[in-house]
Amino acid sequence: MPRRQANIDRVFHALGDATRRAIVERLSQGPISVSHLAQPLNMTLAAVVQHLQILEKSGLVHTEKTGRVRTCRIETSGLTVAEQWINERRATWEKRFDRLGDLLAEPDET
Amino acid sequence: MPRRQANIDRVFHALGDATRRAIVERLSQGPISVSHLAQPLNMTLAAVVQHLQILEKSGLVHTEKTGRVRTCRIETSGLTVAEQWINERRATWEKRFDRLGDLLAEPDET
Repeated sequence: MPRRQANIDRVFHALGDATRRAIVERLSQGPISVSHLAQPLNMTLAAVVQHLQILEKSGLVHTEKTGRVRTCRIETSGLTVAEQWINERRATWEKRFDRLGDLLAEPDET
Repeated sequence: MPRRQANIDRVFHALGDATRRAIVERLSQGPISVSHLAQPLNMTLAAVVQHLQILEKSGLVHTEKTGRVRTCRIETSGLTVAEQWINERRATWEKRFDRLGDLLAEPDET
């Protein structure tokens, strides 16, 4: 399986969970420490770390440890991969509807 | 859980599988019967139908039976939900970078 394919699998799978989307939503507002991120999520720190690992592997989140604090920030490459895939599909079906529109607009020569 | 949330869960989960994305890719080119759709996928018809059911429940595909033929077509609502969610995240982080840019561009008054 090509690398990009595997990446899309991971990105979409990661985003199929409400908690992981809530994390991405929070991080799109700015970087935050893991402990601050966990506070409103109403789950154990271990569970949050597990979600973060899935998000990090899929290129949606980047975490970095400085001293005793691990900071998370959004990583745009994951969302870009998902965005591109969706845009490609939309482009294909819009082109199809354009062609259909052209056909319907053609003067009837029969 | 609000309805929209549940829907996003389903859409992203459905798209996290390479076969289901291949089906959406094929259908974005135009409607096709289930049996024609299954031909290049190298799996049983039953497996294809199972994938189609997941895609249909998430609002990515619509199927309709006329006589003995079931035809599948793309349903845009599922992809629109995913697209909107990604666009909202992008808007949030781009606004943040704009603010950061403004701050850096301000003349230093100290």
